[in-house]
Amino acid sequence: MADTMRAFVMTEVGKTAVVDKSIPTPGPEEAVVRTTASLICTSDVHTVRGALPVENGRTLGHESVGVVHALGSAVSGFTEGQRVAVNAVTPCFRCDYCQRGFTSQCGGALGGYRYTAQMDGNMAEYFIVPAATANLTPIPDDVTDEQAVYTCDMLSTGFMGAEHARIQFGETVAVFAQGPVGLCATIGANLLGAGRVIAVESRPERQALARKFGADDVVDFTAGDPVEQIMELTGGEGVDAAIEAFGFPATFEGCVRATKAGGRISNIGYHGENPAPLQLPLDAIGLGMNDKAIHTGLCPGGSERMGRLIRLLQTGRIDPTPMTTHRFAFDDVERAFQMMADKEDGIIKPLISFT
Amino acid sequence: MADTMRAFVMTEVGKTAVVDKSIPTPGPEEAVVRTTASLICTSDVHTVRGALPVENGRTLGHESVGVVHALGSAVSGFTEGQRVAVNAVTPCFRCDYCQRGFTSQCGGALGGYRYTAQMDGNMAEYFIVPAATANLTPIPDDVTDEQAVYTCDMLSTGFMGAEHARIQFGETVAVFAQGPVGLCATIGANLLGAGRVIAVESRPERQALARKFGADDVVDFTAGDPVEQIMELTGGEGVDAAIEAFGFPATFEGCVRATKAGGRISNIGYHGENPAPLQLPLDAIGLGMNDKAIHTGLCPGGSERMGRLIRLLQTGRIDPTPMTTHRFAFDDVERAFQMMADKEDGIIKPLISFT
Amino acid sequence: MADTMRAFVMTEVGKTAVVDKSIPTPGPEEAVVRTTASLICTSDVHTVRGALPVENGRTLGHESVGVVHALGSAVSGFTEGQRVAVNAVTPCFRCDYCQRGFTSQCGGALGGYRYTAQMDGNMAEYFIVPAATANLTPIPDDVTDEQAVYTCDMLSTGFMGAEHARIQFGETVAVFAQGPVGLCATIGANLLGAGRVIAVESRPERQALARKFGADDVVDFTAGDPVEQIMELTGGEGVDAAIEAFGFPATFEGCVRATKAGGRISNIGYHGENPAPLQLPLDAIGLGMNDKAIHTGLCPGGSERMGRLIRLLQTGRIDPTPMTTHRFAFDDVERAFQMMADKEDGIIKPLISFT
Amino acid sequence: MADTMRAFVMTEVGKTAVVDKSIPTPGPEEAVVRTTASLICTSDVHTVRGALPVENGRTLGHESVGVVHALGSAVSGFTEGQRVAVNAVTPCFRCDYCQRGFTSQCGGALGGYRYTAQMDGNMAEYFIVPAATANLTPIPDDVTDEQAVYTCDMLSTGFMGAEHARIQFGETVAVFAQGPVGLCATIGANLLGAGRVIAVESRPERQALARKFGADDVVDFTAGDPVEQIMELTGGEGVDAAIEAFGFPATFEGCVRATKAGGRISNIGYHGENPAPLQLPLDAIGLGMNDKAIHTGLCPGGSERMGRLIRLLQTGRIDPTPMTTHRFAFDDVERAFQMMADKEDGIIKPLISFT
Repeated sequence: MADTMRAFVMTEVGKTAVVDKSIPTPGPEEAVVRTTASLICTSDVHTVRGALPVENGRTLGHESVGVVHALGSAVSGFTEGQRVAVNAVTPCFRCDYCQRGFTSQCGGALGGYRYTAQMDGNMAEYFIVPAATANLTPIPDDVTDEQAVYTCDMLSTGFMGAEHARIQFGETVAVFAQGPVGLCATIGANLLGAGRVIAVESRPERQALARKFGADDVVDFTAGDPVEQIMELTGGEGVDAAIEAFGFPATFEGCVRATKAGGRISNIGYHGENPAPLQLPLDAIGLGMNDKAIHTGLCPGGSERMGRLIRLLQTGRIDPTPMTTHRFAFDDVERAFQMMADKEDGIIKPLISFT
Repeated sequence: MADTMRAFVMTEVGKTAVVDKSIPTPGPEEAVVRTTASLICTSDVHTVRGALPVENGRTLGHESVGVVHALGSAVSGFTEGQRVAVNAVTPCFRCDYCQRGFTSQCGGALGGYRYTAQMDGNMAEYFIVPAATANLTPIPDDVTDEQAVYTCDMLSTGFMGAEHARIQFGETVAVFAQGPVGLCATIGANLLGAGRVIAVESRPERQALARKFGADDVVDFTAGDPVEQIMELTGGEGVDAAIEAFGFPATFEGCVRATKAGGRISNIGYHGENPAPLQLPLDAIGLGMNDKAIHTGLCPGGSERMGRLIRLLQTGRIDPTPMTTHRFAFDDVERAFQMMADKEDGIIKPLISFT
Repeated sequence: MADTMRAFVMTEVGKTAVVDKSIPTPGPEEAVVRTTASLICTSDVHTVRGALPVENGRTLGHESVGVVHALGSAVSGFTEGQRVAVNAVTPCFRCDYCQRGFTSQCGGALGGYRYTAQMDGNMAEYFIVPAATANLTPIPDDVTDEQAVYTCDMLSTGFMGAEHARIQFGETVAVFAQGPVGLCATIGANLLGAGRVIAVESRPERQALARKFGADDVVDFTAGDPVEQIMELTGGEGVDAAIEAFGFPATFEGCVRATKAGGRISNIGYHGENPAPLQLPLDAIGLGMNDKAIHTGLCPGGSERMGRLIRLLQTGRIDPTPMTTHRFAFDDVERAFQMMADKEDGIIKPLISFT
Repeated sequence: MADTMRAFVMTEVGKTAVVDKSIPTPGPEEAVVRTTASLICTSDVHTVRGALPVENGRTLGHESVGVVHALGSAVSGFTEGQRVAVNAVTPCFRCDYCQRGFTSQCGGALGGYRYTAQMDGNMAEYFIVPAATANLTPIPDDVTDEQAVYTCDMLSTGFMGAEHARIQFGETVAVFAQGPVGLCATIGANLLGAGRVIAVESRPERQALARKFGADDVVDFTAGDPVEQIMELTGGEGVDAAIEAFGFPATFEGCVRATKAGGRISNIGYHGENPAPLQLPLDAIGLGMNDKAIHTGLCPGGSERMGRLIRLLQTGRIDPTPMTTHRFAFDDVERAFQMMADKEDGIIKPLISFT
C-alpha cells in the first residue's frame, strides 16, 4: 500500500524489528523526508539496551539523509524532491535555550535530541523533520549521500568536541578513543589548527584511520597508562587540550590528568552507562586553581552549521567516508545493527542504503 | 639596627611567631616595598596547618601594600617612596604560561603564587616584588591603603570567579559561600552585569554583607538543601552560572546541580583540605552532554589588572572595606591570625597596619 | 466599530496622521498585541523624512508594549491578556543569519527590522508580532509599562553598544552623544564593568542625565575638540573603548581617535543621513596596524535577551525612566512626534499611553 | 677583526649599503644571535623609501634566524650555540599593553616593532634580542632555517589576519592580494577551518601559489571588479570574512563590500603609503548597523606563539618555503633588496644565507 513504509524499531528493551508504519504527514512547520541513506549510531545500541525511557515500537535512528517528500504549510525555501541532510538534533530555534545558542538543549537539557527520544527516529523509509525551515540542509550535487550522512551526528559532534577544546593554532591536542566521534574529533582538531594530535586507541584499524585523519602520535592504552605516555610524548608537560570521546570515568580522568595548567577538557563521550560520577582529582586540577576548563556538550543542530559541514565536504577539505567499513541495504538493517552492537569485524560505521 | 625588620613567620607546622629578618635587597628585576597595610588570608591559615610544603621560618602573607623602598637596576617606571599595591600572584610575564595569559600558572601549575610558597611572604615590614616592572601598581592619592589592599587577592580572585562565570547581562548567578572571596565574587557578579545574584550563606553577618554587596536573595544552607532552594527561587530552572567560593566537594557539586543546561561553574574555592576528588554527578551534567562548563582558577596577577581594580575603587564603583571587621597593629598580628584561624567574633578580614 | 483601530501613519514623505485601520488577525506563527504604551524614536523621524522607502500609509513605531490580544495557532507559551514587551527587531530565528546569532540581520542586512520597514509598525492600538513564540516577552507585575517599553529598542541598542565595546572591568569608556541610546550605552557600560565613563554631550539636561546614569566625566564638544579633552582626561593615552551614539562622520572619527592602541570602537549611531562615507584616519589606526577594532550593529531582538533586560529592571539594577521627559495620550501622538522632530523643550523620550 | 660584523643598512633615505659595525654585546635581559638566514620584507623597502623616521646608518631587516651567540645575565632557559628564531616584534611582555595581550603595541601603538624602527635591525651577521627570555624560540633539528625564518613575520602576520577574521569552520573567506603575507593568510585561513578561500590576485605565479596553499577560487582584479566576482561566486551573498593584505584604500573598501552582514574584515595590509584615509561606504556597512566588524593589527611576537608556528612546520601541517623564489648569499643582499624593491622576476621572498 502506498501510504505505509518500513521502519526499524525497538519493539521492547533488548529487541528490534523492521515493521510497517504509516508514512507520516507533516505539520505546518514540519517536513517529511524520504530516506536514502542512514548510519547506525552506538547511541541506537545504547537505546535498545534501555538507556532512554522510550515507548515500545519507537523507530530508531537519527543519522539520515534523503529527499524532501512533503513540506508543511509554513515551511519555506525548499522544494519537493530536493536532496537534504538533517541533523540528529532538530531544535526549535525559538526557546530561550536555542536563542542563547544551546540548540541541543532546546527547551531544556538534551531537549534538542528528538529522534527516538521524543518521537520516531529516522531509520525508516520516511521521517518527519521538526522546524523544517531551520533543520533541512540542501545537499549539493557534488556531495554524495554517503558523505553527507556523516554531518548528521558524527562530524557535528566530533567538531563540537574540537570547538569546545578552544584550540589555538599549533597547540597539542589529545583525543581519547578513536571510535567514529573520536575520529571525527581528530579530523576536527586538525581542521581547527592543532599542531599535533595524539590519538589514544588500541584497535589497529582505528589507529590506522586516526593516522589517516591526521593524528601524529597514537597511544595504545593497552601498552601502559595513556597519561604517562602522553606526558612522555610532551616532555612531561601535557597537552593543551584533551577530548573525551569514549564515555568512561577513567578516560575522562585521563583527559583531566593529561592536560597542562590552563588546559581545556572537552567531553563528547556519552556517560550514561557509567557506574559512578565523573571525578576531578584534586592534584590534576591544582586543588581547583590551575585554570583548567571542562566543557560538556551534545551534537549541535541547525542548517547553518550543517551547511558549513557540507561545504567542507564539497571543497574536499574533509572526507569521513573511510569510516564506512560496512554497507547494507535497509533489508539487512537488523544484521547491521547486531554487528554494531557486538563491534564485530572491525566495524566503525555501517552505511544503510534505502534504494 | 637599621637593616633588620620584623616578619610574621611560620616557625614550624602549626606554629607562628614574629621574628627579626634582614631587610631584603632587590635583584635587578625586583623591588623592595616597605609595608604599610596587610590583610590576613585564610590561605595563611591553611599554610600554617601544613597545606604547603614550606621550610620552617618562611614569612607568611601575600596581601600587602606599601611604598617603594628600593628598586632593582632593571626596573623602570617607578620611584622610591611611591605608594604601590602588589598582587598575591607575581608572574614573570615571560614564560609560555604567562604569554598565554595564565599568569597564576607562571612556569607551571600555580607557579605564579610565590609569596610563602616559593619565597618569603609579605606580612613583614619589607618585602620583595619579583618582576617589579609588571607587578608594582601605583595607588592614587584618593585611594586608601585599606581600599587598595583588597585588590591584592580578594577582589582579583573574586572578580576572576565572576569573569570565569562568563555572565551575560541580566543573568542569574549563585555564589556559594560568602566568605571574603565569595563576597568579592558577589561584588564582581554585579559589576559584570548579573541580573540577579543568589548568595548561599548561613552566618547572619555575612548574609548582611552579601545583601549590602548586591545579593538579591540569600539562601541559608542550614535551613535546607541550597540547590532545592535555588531551584525554587528560579522556578525550577536553575541559575545561569554558579561560583564556588567555599572549597568543599558538596559545595562544588551544589554548583553543578544548581545550574541550568548551558550553565557555567566557576571555581574559586581552595580544595586542598578536601578528603576526596570533586565529583560531577552524571544527571547534573546530562551524562556529559548538557553544555555545562567548569572553570578553575587562581588569583590573576599583574599591574594592568591591578590598575583596573584600583580604578574601580577610585571612581567609587566598588568599596570592599565593609569586610574589614577587625583592625590590628602589626604588633598584634599573632592575635589577629589566631582569630582568623578560629573564625572568632564574626571576623571576615582583619586589617594589619604597619605604622 | 469593534474591528477597527487607530494607527499613527506616514501618509507620505514628510507627513503623518492618525488613521483608522482594521485590527490585524494573527497568522499561525504570529500574535496580535493590544498596545498600552509606546515611545517615539528618532528613527521614526528619520523615516518620515524619507530615510526608508516605505509605502504611503505605513504605520510608524517600533517601541511598544501591551497585552496579548490574539495568538496564532502555532504560538505556544502565552495566554491572552498577558502583559508583554516586543523588541523593535522581530527575527525569524530560523534563517542562517539568525542561526549565527545576528538576529537583527534576519534574512540579510538589517532584515530583522520589520516594523515600518517591512510591515506596519506598532504605534497603533494593535500590532502584529512575527514569530511570536520567540518575540513575546512576559512583563512581570512589578515592572511597569513605562520601564518595560525602554527594553524594546533603547536599552537593547545601548547595551549592544556596550557589549560590542568588549569592556574589561575597570576600563575607561567614552560614549559620544547622550541622546536616548547614548544614555543607555552609558548605563550599559557601567553595568558591564567600566571603571570610568566619559560622556560627550553639550546639552545640560542630557549632561545631567549622563551623570545620573554613571558618567564620571562629561566632555562638552562645544567647548573644544572632544578628542583633545578625552586625551587630557586620560593622561594622553585615550580610552579603552568608545561608543558612537550620534551618527555623524566626525563623531565616528572622534571615536577612532579617542581610543588607545588595542581599543574598540562600537557604533550604534544611525549614519543614514550622513553626506559621506565614514573615515578611518591612517594615523588613528596606526596605518592599519594598531589593533583597534570596530563593530557596527543594530538592536538585537528576541525574548531571551528581552527577558534579561527586564530582569535588570525588576531587580532594580537599572532604571531608564528618568529619560521620559514628556508624556502624552495617544490622541496627542502627532504633537509628541513634532516635538521629537524639532527636539523641543529638552525632549529626550516622549511616552505615549494608550489607555 | 673578530669583533666587527657586516650589516645591511640604510645609509640615507633611498640608499642602502653593507657596512661594518661592532658585534653587539647583550644587556642583562638581552641576547645576541649570530644570523644564519634572513628574508627581505617589503617593509624594508618602505623604510628605505622613507616610511619610518630612522637615523641614517640604521641596520635594516626584521626576519632572521640564527644561533645564540651571547646571553645577558638575566636571560634563562637558553644556551649558546642553540638555534633560535626571533619574531619581527620583540615585546617587553611587562607593560600594560603587553599584559593585555597586545604585544605588537608594546608601550604604545606599534611599539613592539623595534628592529630598524627603534634599534638596529637584524639583517646583519649578529643582532640583539630584547627581553630574550620571552623572545628567543628554539628551532628543533627537523625544522630548517628556511622554514623557520618564515615564522618571524610572514606566518605570524598572515595567521593573525586569519585569527582576526574569527573564522567558524566551513565559512567562506576572501583574501585580497597574494603577496607573501596574503599567501600566509591563505594558509592560515585554511589552517583555521575555512570551508572555501577566494584569493584575489592577478599575477599568475602568485595565483598558482595561492592555489597550492589552498585557495579554491582565484579572482583576477584586472578582469573586472573583484567584489562583483566574489558576489557572483557566492550567489550574491558575499563572504563571511575578508582579509586585506595589500594596503590600499580600494582594496580595504573591497573587503568591506565583499562581506555579508555580520562579516569580519581583518586588515594586515600596511597603509602607510596611502594618499587618503580608509573609507567605510555607508551602504556596505548598513548605515553603521549590519554587524560587520573590522580588526587592524601588527605581527604578534613572543616565543609562545612562535613555538606554535614552529610546531606546525615540524609536524608538516604547513610549508611556506614554496614562497622562496630567490636565494642569495649575504654578499649579494643589495642585489636581492633591489629585486624586492622592483618586484622583478616574479620575486616573492628572497632568502639570504649567512654561511
